[in-house]
Amino acid sequence: MPPSSAAAASGTDAALAGLAADVVDHRFKGLPPDATGRTVGELAAERRDLFTGGFTTPVMALSAEAVEHNLRLLETYTQRHGLRFAPHGKTPMAPQLLARQLAHGAWGITAAVPHQVRVFRAFGIPRIFLANELVDAAALRWIAAELDADDGFRFLCYVDSVRGVELMDEALGAAGATRRVDVVVELAAGDGARTGARTEADCAAVADAVAATSTLRLVGVAGYEGEVPQADSDRVGAWLRRLVALTAAFDEAGRFGPDVDEIVLSAGGSAWFDAVADVFAQVPPLSRPVLKLLRSGAYIAHDDGHYRKLTPFNRVPEEGALRPAFTLWAQVISRPHPDQAFLNAGKRDAAHDLQLPEAQRVRSARDGTQRAAEGITVTGLSDQHVWVRTEAGAQLEVGDWVGMGMSHPCTIFDKWQLIPLVEADGTVTDYIRTFF
Amino acid sequence: MPPSSAAAASGTDAALAGLAADVVDHRFKGLPPDATGRTVGELAAERRDLFTGGFTTPVMALSAEAVEHNLRLLETYTQRHGLRFAPHGKTPMAPQLLARQLAHGAWGITAAVPHQVRVFRAFGIPRIFLANELVDAAALRWIAAELDADDGFRFLCYVDSVRGVELMDEALGAAGATRRVDVVVELAAGDGARTGARTEADCAAVADAVAATSTLRLVGVAGYEGEVPQADSDRVGAWLRRLVALTAAFDEAGRFGPDVDEIVLSAGGSAWFDAVADVFAQVPPLSRPVLKLLRSGAYIAHDDGHYRKLTPFNRVPEEGALRPAFTLWAQVISRPHPDQAFLNAGKRDAAHDLQLPEAQRVRSARDGTQRAAEGITVTGLSDQHVWVRTEAGAQLEVGDWVGMGMSHPCTIFDKWQLIPLVEADGTVTDYIRTFF
Repeated sequence: MPPSSAAAASGTDAALAGLAADVVDHRFKGLPPDATGRTVGELAAERRDLFTGGFTTPVMALSAEAVEHNLRLLETYTQRHGLRFAPHGKTPMAPQLLARQLAHGAWGITAAVPHQVRVFRAFGIPRIFLANELVDAAALRWIAAELDADDGFRFLCYVDSVRGVELMDEALGAAGATRRVDVVVELAAGDGARTGARTEADCAAVADAVAATSTLRLVGVAGYEGEVPQADSDRVGAWLRRLVALTAAFDEAGRFGPDVDEIVLSAGGSAWFDAVADVFAQVPPLSRPVLKLLRSGAYIAHDDGHYRKLTPFNRVPEEGALRPAFTLWAQVISRPHPDQAFLNAGKRDAAHDLQLPEAQRVRSARDGTQRAAEGITVTGLSDQHVWVRTEAGAQLEVGDWVGMGMSHPCTIFDKWQLIPLVEADGTVTDYIRTFF
Repeated sequence: MPPSSAAAASGTDAALAGLAADVVDHRFKGLPPDATGRTVGELAAERRDLFTGGFTTPVMALSAEAVEHNLRLLETYTQRHGLRFAPHGKTPMAPQLLARQLAHGAWGITAAVPHQVRVFRAFGIPRIFLANELVDAAALRWIAAELDADDGFRFLCYVDSVRGVELMDEALGAAGATRRVDVVVELAAGDGARTGARTEADCAAVADAVAATSTLRLVGVAGYEGEVPQADSDRVGAWLRRLVALTAAFDEAGRFGPDVDEIVLSAGGSAWFDAVADVFAQVPPLSRPVLKLLRSGAYIAHDDGHYRKLTPFNRVPEEGALRPAFTLWAQVISRPHPDQAFLNAGKRDAAHDLQLPEAQRVRSARDGTQRAAEGITVTGLSDQHVWVRTEAGAQLEVGDWVGMGMSHPCTIFDKWQLIPLVEADGTVTDYIRTFF
């Protein structure tokens, strides 16, 4: 390990130790009130039971086994397909999980906005791929200072417009940046899609603008196939081939300077990484090695909704299957009618942007036994209530706990600042801190 | 001020001073990177400009003038109508704002779940109305300990089922509670509505169950008119009259014990407090004074969507008007087509559960001038992007900042942990900490 990486790793260890030394208090919902004043590390060492250890409802549980399984699955998947991996850190925003992703072979971590880069740097992440444009002068000034302060810090971000390049150059010049900032040109996923230059000609104009600066360095090409309009395997594959062709054309045209050791080619959300693997396997020989960077992030927790339906493993079951890691446990507080029940969680606790939570398990308040949540359907969410419809025979009582799966990891993590990591038998072995 | 209140106020002051002494770092998005390491109080004293002071985008701004106006308006409104006020703290979850609500005459603060009670107690709030059922044994054990430790702590919560009363009694008995917990019976807002006992007979059965315990004390009746099915003034008024009649019937039946000094009657969200004021003004003489408690919480920030449309002040404009306090500023990072622009905010930053944000202002990156956001419409939100449609002539450029109003204060506050409080000229005078 080169010295700078060793320094980064040591910074990571110290920062993670700081999380364990933090105090359990009113900042963290769901945690046992009688643990107030203990450190997070001390509470973890107590190995409390999620159901009998004094936790208050609602409480989010992250499955230790599912996370471990998912980490290993994408590690082997990316290795098998010759991809490097910069999982999107916007999903968990949890330094403990990012450190485990790096330990499982990830090249670096992807970010969406500068604040996320700041969090990652506070925890010593050495390589960060900002998969977005960055034209904020204050953020660029900070990035320039970080690059100056640490030779081992590798940072890349998108550019998709000439005006954006001008603003970056202006801000970096004003900041007195000494290291050039590495950029990749973003190719849009199609007409009406999200960010990215829409045509190859637009991309070339952006690359020309980059070449005209002394503050930026063009190192590759990237995009996000998840926004291909009316996405299916054919359309996504076609767009990925455009991305590869653009990379080859840029190389052919000598757009990557002599100091660029490897050409960056990046794509990959959580719905089409099989297509990315297929197309990136066919990259022609270029003038330099190609860093084929996959950025999928939702895999770490997977889900019981959107990604359960969209995961590429549904198309390639022989390569494995992700496991949903989140269960939100809430308590029945009201049973005003035989057809209705209300739980004490709501929009503040559960993802609700794509689908409603799904009732999966019931834990009886009378005897602690668990059973499948049959005849129990979530029908709505208020700010602090889950609306539940119960069929005859559902036998749901006030006081019972209901375990729910959810859709969309990105909007589950961001509802909780300290999340119990729970083994299958209910033992809480750690607490995962998030920074949103 | 009695000694216990003085102690609570002093605890509040110390806890608020702790917030000002906290350090600005990566935990708080949007804040100036060059302020890292300063205390929040030191940064506030610098009175930075929101637009030129080094803040990074996206950044949420809370209008100092609008908050002050709204605080005063509900203070005078409740006074004029003979109501006491326990604004719902679930909305801001911001101890600095709760302290200002108390300074503006609020009787106490309302909570939705025990975690919120914990936050409020950490900041010395002396009177807390938990407008929900509470059957969580761990939370009840903690509540009992808080009541035992502080004679000046007044706590009330809902009961709506016999089973719930049994669970509370069991948990409080097991906890060795020495003070009885004050409860109000919740009357449901109608068939198919949310929590609450559905009929007067159900309410009486719950009151009987309370009377049979030695751990609970019945002190009143409450509910939430915001869930009246197909709500209009007539239906809401009719339900509120049922609530008042139930209170009178309970009193007539001697259901409030001799040690109950005042009978609690509570209702009131942010859409129908005019109806609450009208009907509560007609409460007949009871055996004891009546604490008529309004719980509206959204007023403090108001909004540019749901509550702009629903506020009772639209029906009684002669009593004043609330002002929307939130503006989310995000930066144009991509302009891939003349009809489209993308901003660097998203579901993590803006409320999105009821309506999309509304573009209101544009600040030019070229010269810092501001103008109305004409021809600029938000059409969607990704996790970290705002999708914007621009009409011909909108002249929106990469680098410009767009100020957006939003719908639903409860899901705006919870996206930000430290929110700049900004005066009309852009000066940031304080930073509001939230605890979700």
